Amino acid sequence: MNLDDKVCQGHLASVDDALYVIGGKWKLRIIAGLRDKGTLRFNELQRIVKGISARVLSNELKEMELNGLVQRMPYTETPMVVEYTLTPYSETLGEVLTALSKWGAQHKDKIRKEVHAK
Amino acid sequence: MNLDDKVCQGHLASVDDALYVIGGKWKLRIIAGLRDKGTLRFNELQRIVKGISARVLSNELKEMELNGLVQRMPYTETPMVVEYTLTPYSETLGEVLTALSKWGAQHKDKIRKEVHAK
Repeated sequence: MNLDDKVCQGHLASVDDALYVIGGKWKLRIIAGLRDKGTLRFNELQRIVKGISARVLSNELKEMELNGLVQRMPYTETPMVVEYTLTPYSETLGEVLTALSKWGAQHKDKIRKEVHAK
Repeated sequence: MNLDDKVCQGHLASVDDALYVIGGKWKLRIIAGLRDKGTLRFNELQRIVKGISARVLSNELKEMELNGLVQRMPYTETPMVVEYTLTPYSETLGEVLTALSKWGAQHKDKIRKEVHAK
């Protein structure tokens, strides 16, 4: 394996490492939702991340908590209220989200123009 | 809805638009693989994107072709050989991949340090 191949494999492995933690259908959408709204109760978060079930949202949040991205804040109230917020560490994802959002906007634009051109 | 909310919803919607096209478990890994290797045959691609089945890889490639990201190049040979390569348009994803790769590397580093500290 030459040096170029090693660098490439490192790059690919790092993308894999990132997707292992924030890949899948929901996690980046949950993060984008919390980023926009700040702190949210479970139900509010479920409403914003359209289409997610309570069970899946709960699992996703647990994984994201373990990875230091989301903070769970339970209050001793009746009925118990749990709020979720992003950790300061989650801000390291800013560049990823900005890049995704920019790409999403330009891709939509491209598709729109192609449809118009037909 | 105030202006801030509208801007936020636009941002969230654009992330959603992007994830609609390149989200899920495999697409970005396929793109990262093709980016590193250039042109690949179906079987080579399957070997690089570890864990993907032939059926799923085939579906993913079709969707990515429709979105103008991947180009399919069949040759009239026996047995038929099909190669896949990225389109010039896929280069618009460079920033997304760079951001993901950087984040993946730094997150792995963070986890490693935490494990060491224990």
